[in-house]
Amino acid sequence: MSDRTKAPVRPTSLPEPPYYAVVFTSVRIDDDPGEYQRTAEHLSRLVREVPGFLGEDAARTPGGLAISVAYFRDLAGIEQWRDHPAHLAAKRRGRERWYERYAIHIAKVEHAHVFARE
Amino acid sequence: MSDRTKAPVRPTSLPEPPYYAVVFTSVRIDDDPGEYQRTAEHLSRLVREVPGFLGEDAARTPGGLAISVAYFRDLAGIEQWRDHPAHLAAKRRGRERWYERYAIHIAKVEHAHVFARE
Repeated sequence: MSDRTKAPVRPTSLPEPPYYAVVFTSVRIDDDPGEYQRTAEHLSRLVREVPGFLGEDAARTPGGLAISVAYFRDLAGIEQWRDHPAHLAAKRRGRERWYERYAIHIAKVEHAHVFARE
Repeated sequence: MSDRTKAPVRPTSLPEPPYYAVVFTSVRIDDDPGEYQRTAEHLSRLVREVPGFLGEDAARTPGGLAISVAYFRDLAGIEQWRDHPAHLAAKRRGRERWYERYAIHIAKVEHAHVFARE
């Protein structure tokens, strides 16, 4: 596909379980996509500095649901990211302005399986 | 948004944790989107009959990553769905023809949080 040259190889590579997944499922208002996009890119850089962060995947149906999954080695990394000041500020902004609704699931990955075409 | 009238309200409503999430992250070849789409819709109806199935969410970036999350009450439901003949056939077809790569994560949801605009 044409976007494969610019996009990172996905799904993200991960170690053997157990590890944690934070599943964030959202519907946006799209009131201010520019501010949202800049904040999302900034947070995406910041989260890489959190100890135990393993990677993330994201998808969005145009005009519909978005799902992102961030993987962490343990709950301590998730808690550190949850309490990061820039993340807290973005979440507040998100509830005020960007999101129609969202759900967050914090889950312990027990089994994983990958397939890649030869 | 214009599609809200026809789309079901999402993210899907779920009970209190614990429950299980099956996170399926994939990149398609898009060799035969019609056959893929018909199979996906068929499976989406079948999975609703599996005991303990709680709901599912899905998103796909055009030409890029797709993420679907299916929620189950327990591992028994996940195993029943894993071994369903129509699902087994679709997975085989997927590896032969539809997917460039994919990852499956089976995870126990320990915490969940939802937000909905007033």
